[in-house]
Amino acid sequence: MPESKKPHPPAPSRLGVWLVGARGAISTCVVHGVHGLREGLIEPVGLVTESAALAGLDFAPFDALVFGGHDVCLRDLSRSTLELQRQHILPPNLAQSGAAAAHAYESRIAPGILDQCDVGLADLDPRSAALSARAPRDQIAALVEDLRRFRESERLERVVVVHLASAEAARPARPEWNDLADFERSLDAQIVPPASLLYAYAAISAGAPFVNFTPNLGASIPALRQLARERGVAHCGNDGKTGETLVKTVLAPMFRQRALRVLAWQGYNMLGNRDGATLADPAHKELKLRHKGELLKELLADPSVHGHVAIDYVPSLDDWKTAWDYIHFEGFLGAKMSLQFTWQGSDSALAAPLVLDLVRLVELAQRRGEVGEMAATAPFFKAPLAGGSHDFAAQHAQLEAWARRQRE
Amino acid sequence: MPESKKPHPPAPSRLGVWLVGARGAISTCVVHGVHGLREGLIEPVGLVTESAALAGLDFAPFDALVFGGHDVCLRDLSRSTLELQRQHILPPNLAQSGAAAAHAYESRIAPGILDQCDVGLADLDPRSAALSARAPRDQIAALVEDLRRFRESERLERVVVVHLASAEAARPARPEWNDLADFERSLDAQIVPPASLLYAYAAISAGAPFVNFTPNLGASIPALRQLARERGVAHCGNDGKTGETLVKTVLAPMFRQRALRVLAWQGYNMLGNRDGATLADPAHKELKLRHKGELLKELLADPSVHGHVAIDYVPSLDDWKTAWDYIHFEGFLGAKMSLQFTWQGSDSALAAPLVLDLVRLVELAQRRGEVGEMAATAPFFKAPLAGGSHDFAAQHAQLEAWARRQRE
Amino acid sequence: MPESKKPHPPAPSRLGVWLVGARGAISTCVVHGVHGLREGLIEPVGLVTESAALAGLDFAPFDALVFGGHDVCLRDLSRSTLELQRQHILPPNLAQSGAAAAHAYESRIAPGILDQCDVGLADLDPRSAALSARAPRDQIAALVEDLRRFRESERLERVVVVHLASAEAARPARPEWNDLADFERSLDAQIVPPASLLYAYAAISAGAPFVNFTPNLGASIPALRQLARERGVAHCGNDGKTGETLVKTVLAPMFRQRALRVLAWQGYNMLGNRDGATLADPAHKELKLRHKGELLKELLADPSVHGHVAIDYVPSLDDWKTAWDYIHFEGFLGAKMSLQFTWQGSDSALAAPLVLDLVRLVELAQRRGEVGEMAATAPFFKAPLAGGSHDFAAQHAQLEAWARRQRE
Amino acid sequence: MPESKKPHPPAPSRLGVWLVGARGAISTCVVHGVHGLREGLIEPVGLVTESAALAGLDFAPFDALVFGGHDVCLRDLSRSTLELQRQHILPPNLAQSGAAAAHAYESRIAPGILDQCDVGLADLDPRSAALSARAPRDQIAALVEDLRRFRESERLERVVVVHLASAEAARPARPEWNDLADFERSLDAQIVPPASLLYAYAAISAGAPFVNFTPNLGASIPALRQLARERGVAHCGNDGKTGETLVKTVLAPMFRQRALRVLAWQGYNMLGNRDGATLADPAHKELKLRHKGELLKELLADPSVHGHVAIDYVPSLDDWKTAWDYIHFEGFLGAKMSLQFTWQGSDSALAAPLVLDLVRLVELAQRRGEVGEMAATAPFFKAPLAGGSHDFAAQHAQLEAWARRQRE
Repeated sequence: MPESKKPHPPAPSRLGVWLVGARGAISTCVVHGVHGLREGLIEPVGLVTESAALAGLDFAPFDALVFGGHDVCLRDLSRSTLELQRQHILPPNLAQSGAAAAHAYESRIAPGILDQCDVGLADLDPRSAALSARAPRDQIAALVEDLRRFRESERLERVVVVHLASAEAARPARPEWNDLADFERSLDAQIVPPASLLYAYAAISAGAPFVNFTPNLGASIPALRQLARERGVAHCGNDGKTGETLVKTVLAPMFRQRALRVLAWQGYNMLGNRDGATLADPAHKELKLRHKGELLKELLADPSVHGHVAIDYVPSLDDWKTAWDYIHFEGFLGAKMSLQFTWQGSDSALAAPLVLDLVRLVELAQRRGEVGEMAATAPFFKAPLAGGSHDFAAQHAQLEAWARRQRE
Repeated sequence: MPESKKPHPPAPSRLGVWLVGARGAISTCVVHGVHGLREGLIEPVGLVTESAALAGLDFAPFDALVFGGHDVCLRDLSRSTLELQRQHILPPNLAQSGAAAAHAYESRIAPGILDQCDVGLADLDPRSAALSARAPRDQIAALVEDLRRFRESERLERVVVVHLASAEAARPARPEWNDLADFERSLDAQIVPPASLLYAYAAISAGAPFVNFTPNLGASIPALRQLARERGVAHCGNDGKTGETLVKTVLAPMFRQRALRVLAWQGYNMLGNRDGATLADPAHKELKLRHKGELLKELLADPSVHGHVAIDYVPSLDDWKTAWDYIHFEGFLGAKMSLQFTWQGSDSALAAPLVLDLVRLVELAQRRGEVGEMAATAPFFKAPLAGGSHDFAAQHAQLEAWARRQRE
Repeated sequence: MPESKKPHPPAPSRLGVWLVGARGAISTCVVHGVHGLREGLIEPVGLVTESAALAGLDFAPFDALVFGGHDVCLRDLSRSTLELQRQHILPPNLAQSGAAAAHAYESRIAPGILDQCDVGLADLDPRSAALSARAPRDQIAALVEDLRRFRESERLERVVVVHLASAEAARPARPEWNDLADFERSLDAQIVPPASLLYAYAAISAGAPFVNFTPNLGASIPALRQLARERGVAHCGNDGKTGETLVKTVLAPMFRQRALRVLAWQGYNMLGNRDGATLADPAHKELKLRHKGELLKELLADPSVHGHVAIDYVPSLDDWKTAWDYIHFEGFLGAKMSLQFTWQGSDSALAAPLVLDLVRLVELAQRRGEVGEMAATAPFFKAPLAGGSHDFAAQHAQLEAWARRQRE
Repeated sequence: MPESKKPHPPAPSRLGVWLVGARGAISTCVVHGVHGLREGLIEPVGLVTESAALAGLDFAPFDALVFGGHDVCLRDLSRSTLELQRQHILPPNLAQSGAAAAHAYESRIAPGILDQCDVGLADLDPRSAALSARAPRDQIAALVEDLRRFRESERLERVVVVHLASAEAARPARPEWNDLADFERSLDAQIVPPASLLYAYAAISAGAPFVNFTPNLGASIPALRQLARERGVAHCGNDGKTGETLVKTVLAPMFRQRALRVLAWQGYNMLGNRDGATLADPAHKELKLRHKGELLKELLADPSVHGHVAIDYVPSLDDWKTAWDYIHFEGFLGAKMSLQFTWQGSDSALAAPLVLDLVRLVELAQRRGEVGEMAATAPFFKAPLAGGSHDFAAQHAQLEAWARRQRE
């Protein structure tokens, strides 16, 4: 019934992008990268939404994006910019040209909230410390108010919230997380949940599409999925699939499809950025390791495959994640063979375009009426909220199918 | 109209498998492997036709297979068996248990024909030398007669021919190859084409499904594709995709789908088996290099990508192909990154189960009325006869779709 | 004054080699290897004492060696032999030809003693369990009696004891280990030390040269070094330098000599043999990790260099130790560079010839009057008893200098 | 007889360093690096003459160095500086701070001579083209005059000439190169030799110590060695040992010293700088490949070892030489094992400090009366002029011994 089909609302001319972890390396790359794209200083390399597969969709243009965000640190953004230059990730000319835009962005950064396990962090914004000591309902209210003010002062048609903060310490699941009413009662009772849940709650209750790029819980608990459906919010997560895991999810299906038996898959990750420093703590790396490890069992259809994943902090590597994977496998006649690979990539430069892709995807989806976990974003995540196979090629085929449906 | 649907003919209870290159390492692995599968000495690792993706199809059972073949060498099969044991590919117990079966197989090996460029080869069967000196029509007649005798003496319902002989020297395409009538006239005129064309002509004209696992031309020239259609023969090729190229065809799509720009893809292959010795000659490796190199351009949708493929002969490696690929790529902000991998696998143990898969696939296809290039076999080849993308995941999805259609 | 120089005693015509860990993979390789060398079935590859550097010294000939040993397991030696064949380390023909020699060797294996931390081990010899429950002086007496009986029944001129048993759990050093009298009082007081100390005590007090190829304490405590000097015994250890560490000790000096600054050295080791299973326990791998890690600081003359060593158990690898090291370093102008290597070697086939070398070296040394820690064996160990640099080239130069002195 | 020992002449307070290939990447790194060292902007990483091994020698201080040089290109030095910044080799602050020094240096660059095989090179200085068309004696006279003018105008106590120009095409040795008189007659007869011989002739006849860091012939022909002895000139070469070959010359001795049998050593080198572009031509890479390949035979004491070296041009890598070596070796019992390594380093940043080391070493040597090929510089070269083993550790030990003698 094409006659009854209403035209889609047009792409926003002013779209707010609210980055939680606003002073971090990924955010810095996002803000400078968008400046570079607008000015024609860089090409849209690494941006899936600019590739042929997603052509013809009316994503929010880069010109429409306005950035703001939350952070708990006082560290100046220019320090992050300098570090990224020193690490050979941000080209000097881009940093220079984007200085004014970065400055304007910095003026839109508000103090965020801190996870209870991270109290005592270095160079903490005292306003964040004060905020984090308040009741959870008060914290949420402050976050929501920041989003409202951003929206109004910048005259934005919509705001998308992206969670990019550090990995939180893993905590056992609590029964009240399974139901929205229970969860809200626990908030009323001043039981403080992980900070990522509060960020997700604030974003969703403010009607903002929510992207959780971190291994943190974010909107993955049943209570918040329910909230998203009730508020008509599209969201996606968890844990961006940027490097070693991406390679895993194209290689593992190959072994299965060729009926080769994987005997062992050892993955050793090294990195030296702030993320690496945080992950040096076992509690903080638990969720990430779980995401990295679990998917092999599904991909190889072998729940008992011998697998091991390590993440080690090597300060000199800075943002340059270096990973070595060794895959031991068996072929015909019992012959043992191997494949090993070394991945060397800048985590932030890999993550930043995916963040932009997800902002555009989730905004388009919500604009067109999609609600809840956005299944088409699965290829972007280590632990996609809508589940499904971790097979990257299959996930990408689904994304292409979604794009075709959008074009119809 | 299910009522009118005729039931498919049943799987053969005696299926001939005629191996060209019958004394080579792959053939030896195939024959011993089938013995091992029948006796329950090995598991069907590496066999796609035994995997969940192709379950429910009535492939020819392993018990039905009877092996024979052509070879130009005199070297005893037991020598090949011993070499494969020494190289840790064929387990000693399997070799011992399969000795009688191998002996029976050897009695069914007939002298083959030799490519003109390979005259003077060591340990050549004088009967092959004599046969190869005769007119092309006589050579074809001798090959066809061998197939007929095999079929009758072994009471076979059908024979599948698999081309596994050494890589031939590349030769410029000739105009008469474009048309069957022209090609046949050239045969009458005693113009001797590459041996692989004669093998393909013989097989197809005898109505035998034909599998070309080598980089040789086989049935890929237009004239022989025409012959296959006229005779109702299903066939497939060229150049089995066993190792480094397989990995390439899952990794390259990942870069494209993530919009990462590949700057250079260098592939260094080393091997030490007979295949390696043959490929040490530039003329003999030309076709293989072409197949290995061309597919990157399609997969990356970048005809000018900097790529280089080398194949070097390293005798001590024997059958253990070792390849190192270095992929240099660019991400967001112009950051240069890399992925490198080392593949170590037994070429013969990787090829053998694919040969068995292809025999079963092409036999099933022809039994059910498929004619000509069998598109569903694309994931098995570096240069699939029916064309299409080299993306392994996409090829495998096509194979699964074919299997679903067969099950309907 | 050559006239006064006494001629050296001649090489023994019957030399006992007593292997502690007699049923293990290294011992099995040693026994079969010596058989192969005697019969001309293998070449002396991997044997430093057969290389040009040590030519002209009257080492004990392979024909003179008679093997016996201690073990705590009941597992049949033929099982170890089969495993090594299945793992492609011991060639089938060698195993077959050496079966009688191995059988004779097995008849000379006596029950050994068990470290207190390893009580409850699988397939334990009940005689070992009983022996290990007795007072330390009784355990020593039993071990000494085994050596005496071996020497007499086989009419041996001398016995060398080689410690090849599993890695023991690390234990804090005790004050009584610093002095022989104190240590002996503690034995009288029935304080049970690690089993490796008892083995070393027994060997040295029986006048047998002692080789400690393991990371265990062995004869490294001051009390036992004192005992060796008093008894005129030559000994050496600890912890055979077979693979990844060997490579480290040639690469690290290169960086220092070129004034390149190593920023990080990460070493990831994987193995799947019994040693690997033992080392999967943190307490058991502590000493080994310490030896592997400490030497970098000396070699790089940088006590604060960022280094990390991991040892992971990967059962499918069996004896094939696979290690990946990533070395991040800085050059001129602050440019960051890297070297990474992957080592793949059979731990047992690497260790076995070194064990034979050490037996011959320590026997020659003691025969010629050397007493105490044998400094010239430093290139064979991760933690040489006589100290000195870990620089392999420097250690080897010292060994060559020692050989020159022996030839004079 | 210490009383008769004359004191050594003091280090020069103004030392000229004349760089042939003055606008190239290495020269640019040298000039900016010395500026950085003087200003305390960088540490002396990669400088062997600043390491403990060579402490206590009165090398020319960095403050004394004055740079000039020859080049055949017109390309501005600032372009080379920008390229090195873009390639993340030269830090922006260093480039900025050194701009004035670089500018002064550029004013001291004179047009050089061009090898006959390279006529037609892009962006060629027309003065170089004109000069190269003249008779060889005229070319030499022009070069000598440039050195004289440099020395006088800058009031230098001495000038060291360093050959850093591109790899020349290999040419067959000529009989007249074996004798100085013959060589000079051929010059008189206007037979034009490779340009590197003319540079060497000019430097040596001007009494300047000469360093040949390239694979070119330089002063290696007997005629020029004779000239150096006659003129009392110290010199050294050929072909700086910066990366993959350096690693080879520490690993290969390890295999020999451990009596492990190397079965094959495959080395694959990739680079994308001007050197790489030049070496893409087979004639130009011949000498380099020869140096890289030959040394394995000596190091492994095995003239028939299977070895292969490739150098491929991969433009995107720029100056970042990336090499993969695969070493296949045999251990005890015939077990086959492997070591593979990947080296990633900036060729220019590796070469530059060695150039400075060699300038200081050869200046000190000549100041103290050494004449001819300077044997102590062997660790710096792939093909040391004074011969000897390629074993890096042994070479370094010789350098340390030389340093000790200098200190006495």
